[in-house]
Order: sequence, then C-alpha cells, then structure tokens
Amino acid sequence: MTMKKKPVTGMKDILPREMEIRDYVISMIKETYKTFGFCSVETPCVEHIDNLVSKQGGENEKLIFKILKRGEKLKLDMAQTEADLADSGLRYDLTLPLARYYANHVNDLPSPFKSLQIGNVWRADRPQRGRFRQFMQCDIDILGEPSILAETELITATTALLGKVGFKDFTIRLNDRRILKAIAAYAGFEEEKFEIIFIILDKLDKIGIQGVEDELIKSGFSKDSVEKYLKLYQDMTADHFGLPLLKETLHGILDEKVADELQTIISSVEAVKSADFRIIFDPSLVRGMSYYTGPIFEISMDEFGGSVGGGGRYDEMIGKFSGIQVPACGFSIGFERIVMLLLENNYKISTSEIKKAYLIEKNISEEKMITIMKKANEERTGGTHVNIIIMKKNKKFQKEQLIAEGYTNIAEFFK
Amino acid sequence: MTMKKKPVTGMKDILPREMEIRDYVISMIKETYKTFGFCSVETPCVEHIDNLVSKQGGENEKLIFKILKRGEKLKLDMAQTEADLADSGLRYDLTLPLARYYANHVNDLPSPFKSLQIGNVWRADRPQRGRFRQFMQCDIDILGEPSILAETELITATTALLGKVGFKDFTIRLNDRRILKAIAAYAGFEEEKFEIIFIILDKLDKIGIQGVEDELIKSGFSKDSVEKYLKLYQDMTADHFGLPLLKETLHGILDEKVADELQTIISSVEAVKSADFRIIFDPSLVRGMSYYTGPIFEISMDEFGGSVGGGGRYDEMIGKFSGIQVPACGFSIGFERIVMLLLENNYKISTSEIKKAYLIEKNISEEKMITIMKKANEERTGGTHVNIIIMKKNKKFQKEQLIAEGYTNIAEFFK
Repeated sequence: MTMKKKPVTGMKDILPREMEIRDYVISMIKETYKTFGFCSVETPCVEHIDNLVSKQGGENEKLIFKILKRGEKLKLDMAQTEADLADSGLRYDLTLPLARYYANHVNDLPSPFKSLQIGNVWRADRPQRGRFRQFMQCDIDILGEPSILAETELITATTALLGKVGFKDFTIRLNDRRILKAIAAYAGFEEEKFEIIFIILDKLDKIGIQGVEDELIKSGFSKDSVEKYLKLYQDMTADHFGLPLLKETLHGILDEKVADELQTIISSVEAVKSADFRIIFDPSLVRGMSYYTGPIFEISMDEFGGSVGGGGRYDEMIGKFSGIQVPACGFSIGFERIVMLLLENNYKISTSEIKKAYLIEKNISEEKMITIMKKANEERTGGTHVNIIIMKKNKKFQKEQLIAEGYTNIAEFFK
Repeated sequence: MTMKKKPVTGMKDILPREMEIRDYVISMIKETYKTFGFCSVETPCVEHIDNLVSKQGGENEKLIFKILKRGEKLKLDMAQTEADLADSGLRYDLTLPLARYYANHVNDLPSPFKSLQIGNVWRADRPQRGRFRQFMQCDIDILGEPSILAETELITATTALLGKVGFKDFTIRLNDRRILKAIAAYAGFEEEKFEIIFIILDKLDKIGIQGVEDELIKSGFSKDSVEKYLKLYQDMTADHFGLPLLKETLHGILDEKVADELQTIISSVEAVKSADFRIIFDPSLVRGMSYYTGPIFEISMDEFGGSVGGGGRYDEMIGKFSGIQVPACGFSIGFERIVMLLLENNYKISTSEIKKAYLIEKNISEEKMITIMKKANEERTGGTHVNIIIMKKNKKFQKEQLIAEGYTNIAEFFK
C-alpha cells in the first residue's frame, strides 16, 4: 500500500518556525489570562453527535467531522442515513463543550468560574488559502456572573493580551442582541424572521447599505419596513453610532438598561485600558451564533481586514445541559489569524536564549564523547540550548546551515 | 433534544487542579527539551486512513476512531464495508504522523532534525480506570542520525526531564530488536514466527518464565527450541543481564557491534546522567511495535508498576513515505501517567505567583469600579493574579471558598 506524505485535505503540518510563534503566543495567553484569574480547563476533542447537532452551532453544524460507530454498534446493513453511522464528532468550537463541562462539574467549580480553554476545533469548510479544517481556538469565559463586570473583564483581558503581543490601533466593536432585535421590531419585522434579517445585515461591510436593502426586498420583506430599518442604521452612522439617539428612537421597545450598560462597558474599558485601541458601539454587528442573548463584541484589525476574535453573552446555553440557567459570557481570539499576522510581519520573539552547536568529528572515542556530553549537560542545566551534532564531510555548508538556524556559537570537537 | 452533560464514553473533562499540573509538566517539557536542541512541530490530529492501517501501528490499528466521508464522497447505498465509509481517522500515536511530516518537509528541515511533538492521540480501547480514549503524548525524535548519539541524547534528555519534575530511583531498560531476533534464531525458531514469540515473551513480567514456557508450547513451538530459548534468558538473568555472556553465546548469529553499542549507550548515559536512576540491559524487553529496527528502551517506575514511557530506533518507517530511508529514533514519555503520579502524590508546583481576590459590593458606582479595575490592572501587569468578584450575601462562605482556591489575599471594596 502506498503511504501518503501530504496531510489530509485542508489540514496542515506546522513547521518549526511557525511553532515557535505559536508556542510563544500560547505562553503569553496563559501568562496574561492567569493574571486576570482565569483557570485552564480541557474538554475532549470528540463530542456527542446529539450535542453537536443541537442547533447551538448555526452554520457550523453542517461542517462536522463525524466519527463512525465502532464494533457491534455499527450496523451497516441496517443504516438508512448518516445519522445511523455516527455517534460522535469532532467539536467545531470550544463554547458548546465548555457549557457541557460546566453543567457536568458545577459542584466542583468556583462560582463565578473563569475558564481558559485552548484547543483544536474542526470544520469541514471548503479548503481555501489561509483557512484550515483544523485550527486552534483560545477562549476565555466567565460562567455564573450576570453583571457586565464579565463583559468588561473579558474585553480588558483580551485587549491586554493583544497589546502584549504587539498589536495596536485595533477596534473593539460592541453591540447587543437585544438592540438588534429591538431595531428589527421597531421597523415592523416579524420576530420569526429576525435571524434571516440579521444574516443579511451581517453582510453590510461587504455589500453596503444598498446591497442589504436589495437583499431584504428580494427576500420578500415589505418596502416600508426595510426603509424604516435602514434609515435608523443610516441615522446612527451619521450620529457616530450614538447610543442616546438609539435610546430615544427605541423608547418603549428597548429596555433603557441595555443601552446604558453598553455605555458603561465602553467607558469602563476606555478608562482602564492599557493597550492602544478603541472601543465603539456598532449597531450593525451581528455575530453568527444565535445562542447569544446580550452584549456581543468583535475585534477588527485594519491589517487583517476582518475579525480577529469575538464573543458575547450566552445566558441560555448551560441550562440546556443542566436544566438550571447559568449566566455566561465568553471571548474567543482568532489564534490562527494572530499567528498569521505575526508570521507575515516577521515577528521577532524577544528571548535571552543562547543556542550553541557542538560539532563532533565522526568516530570520536567514547571517553571524549562522554566529556563533551557532560559539558553540554552543564550548559543545558544553565538554560543554554546545546545541540550535539556529528560533523559532516561538507563542514562549511553544515556550519552555514547551523548559523541560519540561529546557532550563534559553534564549537568543534575532534578525535 | 436532550443535551448530554457527561463526556463521550472513555474520554474525560479535565478540571483546573489537574490542568495546573498538566500545564506545568508541559512547560517543563518544552523548557528542558529545547535545551537539548529539540524544536516543536505539530501534525494534524486527523490522518489518512490508508496511512493509519498500513501495518505500522500493530494492535493500535484495531482501535482507530474512523471519520465518515463527507458530502458526495459518502455513498451510503453503495457501501459494502466500513472501509467504504471512512477516508480518515484520528491518529493513534505521534510517530506515524511524524514520519509522514518528515518525508513531506525534508527539504525545509535541518538534518539531523530533532523534533518535539506534544499532542493528543485516540484509541478506542475498552474503557478502564485511569485509561482514557483520548490522551496526550509527548515525543522527542531524532531523524537523520544513524549513530547511537541519537539514543544517548534521547535517554539523557528524557531522564533529565523526569529528574526536574521530581522523579527518582527509576530504571531505564534497554534492549535491541536485533538481539531479540538473534536469541530467537539461536533457539531455532523460524523468522516468520518471531513476532508471535515476542508477544508471548512480552508477558514475562506478568506470567513468569513458566507462564511463557507454557504459552510457547501451547502455541505449537518445539519443546527443544522453547527450552533453549528460555535457558538463555535464565542464564542472562543469573548473570545480571550480562552483555558479554550474550555476545559469546550468540557468536556468529549476532553482529558484535550491536552488543557493543548497547554497552556504550549504557556507559555514556551512566557517565553523564544528572537525575537519580539506573540504566540496565534487559534482553526480555520487547516493546509492542514491530516497526523498531534497533535499540529499544522503556522507563520503569516502582511507584507505577509499569512503563511510564519508551521508544526506540525505527530506521525503515520514513522510507515508506518518501522512498528514501532515513535513520530515526524516538522516545515517548507517558504524559498521562506522569501527571497521574504527580496528582496522586499531591505535587506542589513551586511558584512565586501571588493570587489576590478583590471582593466588590454589588451595585458599586461606575466611578469606583473603574478605580478598582485600574488598581487590579496595575497589579496584573506586575504579574499578580487578581480576580475581581462581586460580593455574595454569604460573604463568610465566599471568603472561605476563595481561601481554599488559593487566594491568600482578599481585599473588600464597598459602595
């Protein structure tokens, strides 16, 4: 049988240069988030298929890698549909497994619980440049905290991390699912149609306000409602996304507390921020997942031309596992995009590491080799990286390669 | 639909206390192995099914979690066997994906290449206490180095790590596949039957020499050969596993270099070791995988009553991917067992971290909250862990819980 040397379609092998950046970003994530009181957790990569297809995951549910039942459980001759073949699948995000985890272990966890979860997720998306079917996510979540302290802390922690890794001049866009809904209700749309409208509104960045209007009309929404809807968005844009205008216009439809709390999140984050970024109210921010119940937020970076992370409040998910509602709020950073940006900018990790190569002549005596290894181990114990390598015939080329790999110090040992 | 709150069968959620140990061990692994010149790599968790079932994985090939084909590729009505349904699966070890990785990227990697790979693997084993179907492996491999420098460095690096994490008084057992084969040939067994014999010999620890004898006879091997085979094992045990006796007995059957090199590995490791352990020749060490071609080794710990890691030389695997033979040698530590032993011994991570809790009275003013958050962020920048928490009605209980979580310093802030 031929062995395939390429990875499976849409997945990638990660080379040492990228791994250095990844290891560095992960160490910064752990270090930074722990100072905010977050604790590491881990959930299995494999999740019950019933949980994965429970309508929490939106479009991602179409992209699940499903795992075949094993042994006697697989009854191929009786299988009618895919559902008869699979009992589990690879997780497509970290939020659903975390909600299950919290429901399962609530009695063993502090309340509120501040979780940090770093792990791979899988989506069988159409392969495209820079997007892979296995990718790493890093989520922080605060479970059991109903107040906007959760949102404020999540945004402060995430922006502190981005600042430490060297990002600046980015934007946190903030909205609230209840505002999205109130604006749609104000325009006269029916509640059952809200999700369809939001999916179209979400394209505003790409297709512009005229494009959104065209698509809404084409989808059969009344001209009156569409015009009223988009007029408010235009007015708010002109008003620099003014929350006061919104409060006034939606009087009686939107609980004033919602707008006031968004304002408090903005002013608190602005007041305590350490990194160089701005936070703005953006009433057109949608976020894909319908499980969000309150504030939602996203990081925009001009260098990237898109989102490099986002999150929001999802107060109703944990209750679906345990029957007991638990307020919950999370922020996920786009780990792969951050790594990609750092790689593209040829990011230099500041390090005090010394890399030494010991080049050893072939067939050196056992005694001499032991002396060399002892010396290497002494240096290693002191933190120096020592690579012991057998000398090749073309020593000049070998040394050039070692220098290119960052070995600033090359010692030679002869028979 | 009901959501399931337990993890899928045989997999586990990892609680914060265990995660602290895991994160610590991983950081020690990266720190230690990097001083030996190893570089991090990552391969996808999902691997081609053809590679996984290519007879490299021994018994593990029966335990693969297979992934269902997607979209049009899945032709359920035409599927005759499991093989028609799956195009990929979860990796059962890190060695096979590494061999594929090296074959795929040989031009972008240094030679020799010292790889460090940490990642989850999956085996659909019968669930049992302490063994899970998803578990982490940590492998170091040296690819492209034919000499025993590879074995010596792998053993030195691994034992240095174990020493740093606090293990002592363990044993490295060392053998060579060529010695296993030579002894079997010396006893008169046929080469095609060697693997069956080694599987029985591997049970020596559990069933004793009489048990091995009974099983060999029962399997139809000649009494003469079985007796000659086991007599040599008994003589070597009496001789404290003497390599000289072995060389003499196997004169003409075993290349003397094999025994001499094992002796050199032993004396080199002994001479340069920093941790408190012993390394011995053990001619009964088998290791499961048939892909090994040269020296093999395993870590035994009395506290555990079994192996906590092992490895060996596998010079023929990479060639199966690239057509070009590349010498290769690896050492995998039993990460889960090490974590389990540390947890059971109530291991204390030495840390200079300070954990502070700020208890905030409910409905505090925005202004006061901002002042508190600023103060928290200043402390966080200095490395202190600060958890901002809303005060509960039962403050006494809340404070006791925080102390139990390791918050040595609790500050209260009122309206």
